[in-house]
Amino acid sequence: MKIDHSNSMNIDVEGVRNLCIKILAGAGVPEPDAMAVADNLVQADLRGIGSHGISRMFAYCQRIQDHMINLDPDIRVIKETGSTLLVDGDNGLGAVVGIKTMDLCMKKAKESGMASCAVRNGNHFGFAAYYAMRALPQDMIGMAFTNAPPTMAPWGSITPLLGTNPFCYAIPAGRYRPIVLDSATSVVARGKISLAEIENRPIPESWAMDDQGRPTTNATEALKGTVLPFGSYKGSGISMMIDIFCALLGGAQFGGHIGNLYNNSETHQELGFFFSVIDIKSFSDPGIFKARIDQMIDEIKNSEKAYGVDEIFVPGEIEFNNEAENLIKGIEIGPGVLKDLNTLRIRYGIDVNPSDYIKKQ
Amino acid sequence: MKIDHSNSMNIDVEGVRNLCIKILAGAGVPEPDAMAVADNLVQADLRGIGSHGISRMFAYCQRIQDHMINLDPDIRVIKETGSTLLVDGDNGLGAVVGIKTMDLCMKKAKESGMASCAVRNGNHFGFAAYYAMRALPQDMIGMAFTNAPPTMAPWGSITPLLGTNPFCYAIPAGRYRPIVLDSATSVVARGKISLAEIENRPIPESWAMDDQGRPTTNATEALKGTVLPFGSYKGSGISMMIDIFCALLGGAQFGGHIGNLYNNSETHQELGFFFSVIDIKSFSDPGIFKARIDQMIDEIKNSEKAYGVDEIFVPGEIEFNNEAENLIKGIEIGPGVLKDLNTLRIRYGIDVNPSDYIKKQ
Repeated sequence: MKIDHSNSMNIDVEGVRNLCIKILAGAGVPEPDAMAVADNLVQADLRGIGSHGISRMFAYCQRIQDHMINLDPDIRVIKETGSTLLVDGDNGLGAVVGIKTMDLCMKKAKESGMASCAVRNGNHFGFAAYYAMRALPQDMIGMAFTNAPPTMAPWGSITPLLGTNPFCYAIPAGRYRPIVLDSATSVVARGKISLAEIENRPIPESWAMDDQGRPTTNATEALKGTVLPFGSYKGSGISMMIDIFCALLGGAQFGGHIGNLYNNSETHQELGFFFSVIDIKSFSDPGIFKARIDQMIDEIKNSEKAYGVDEIFVPGEIEFNNEAENLIKGIEIGPGVLKDLNTLRIRYGIDVNPSDYIKKQ
Repeated sequence: MKIDHSNSMNIDVEGVRNLCIKILAGAGVPEPDAMAVADNLVQADLRGIGSHGISRMFAYCQRIQDHMINLDPDIRVIKETGSTLLVDGDNGLGAVVGIKTMDLCMKKAKESGMASCAVRNGNHFGFAAYYAMRALPQDMIGMAFTNAPPTMAPWGSITPLLGTNPFCYAIPAGRYRPIVLDSATSVVARGKISLAEIENRPIPESWAMDDQGRPTTNATEALKGTVLPFGSYKGSGISMMIDIFCALLGGAQFGGHIGNLYNNSETHQELGFFFSVIDIKSFSDPGIFKARIDQMIDEIKNSEKAYGVDEIFVPGEIEFNNEAENLIKGIEIGPGVLKDLNTLRIRYGIDVNPSDYIKKQ
């Protein structure tokens, strides 16, 4: 995505992280959970995924204020086999439920060889790679999926009955950084359109249709209409599969029945998540596996480049580069996000001005 | 895909199935295995996937004649955990290895809740849904993946280092027929380009590039070049993931190292497969799950249609419709496939003329 950087500024990572923790605590979130949610959002921004970063703070706090989130959830396993878990998230914050469940899934994979876990009664969990990547230090492959409020029409339809339902696969490497494929099933994540709306920017015509099924470059009109699936009917089919795994298997809401994150003070989201973990040593010595991954990356990165391409990137590589860069120069935010943070810190009486953390260029 | 039907004809299903069995037996395949391979190919044609049907007979027989296939393979489990299997296909025919392994994976899923199986030393296994769908009658979700010879360039590259690596998810339904998403990670299956070459038809420009990275409508030039991934970098990333699961996990060949099915009398294919099975009752009562799937299908099929769309189809529905129709009217083949079958039956001294099975229009 081409971002208009003319109005953007950089904010100090630890400064904004602490501010987010204070705001969430001010909204009533227990401190360990506030730290988890803030970490999830800040990590997204560090990786250059502003659509899933602290731009979500305002919506999260609004959901809490509207009593739509359970801040003291009883996250529990309600069904279990040798290699599967069904977890009730009890309407807790997405990151809190997601971290706990992914860790249970990893434990089960260590015991059983691999494991999968479906979660019901969940809320927006941020970016999927945050969970999938937890498996990497233990030489396991992590997979994370969530469904999302209906914003995309199944192929052939103009009714929003699918979410942008993302998928993520995180694969350990040896000499290289891990391969992390994290993608919405729409042409772009809908969060990028929300961010364009917050920052009052136009969007490319290939991203979405308005509520009459016409192409549009207006972010607000696009948010009233539907986003387009990637790869036409194939992306639409993959989005359906993610909905089935996340929701229909374990009894979460699906398709058109999922509650919205925005402008909704009346219904719970009741999202579903699906996590899968493969312990690499079930199939191969992890050292040998990671050497094979390195060989794959070597061969791809050193292959013949297409016209106009300076460097070939494997999935996740650009995000790791962003992270290294943003840790130093700070997270890039627009004036809309800065205004939101300021509104929130005033609301919760926090004596820290986010503008103080803006870095000098 | 728009097929030019002007030269095509319909051949009786059981007639051509028996002819294929006789040809394969003539080539030295034990009869039960010949029946399995013929069934796999005929099922593909019945479902309207001519690219993966009896059009492959000639190549399969050539591989056998070139001593590139082990007709008496020792297909064995070489590593096992509570929920995983690693299988050595011992260079057996793809369908023979695939069926045996998928059935082992289903058995393990029944015991463990879910299971996954990686296969190495495999050969072309036909269409992926053939394996995934085996899980359906037992109220299980079936998934099947294979890697394929290098014909697609990773995004940003023009070097063929990926196959069209297909994925398939088969989901049981209640009142409706199952949802079966079976798709190549290229814009179209490369087999459709091979079929266009056999039948001397042009291909759309969006399917492939020639060996210089230029768009082409010539099937022969496209087969020398690379096919394009669906959904640009996202399809490229998914193809990499499938290669990792099918090959890098269990030690099959990957990327540019896989042996070709065609014009290759010197190297084994050494393909990898990956199967995954979820026993639905690990998460939900299967009856409740299937009722939810029916509801999802109802809602999608009855949603508002896009301009010009007569009916909204869920994944696999068109293939089930094709099957019902083709069982009656016969499998559609072109003159190139008929000629191949005739060459083969003469080669193996089979006293059956395929032309006798062509149905009168």
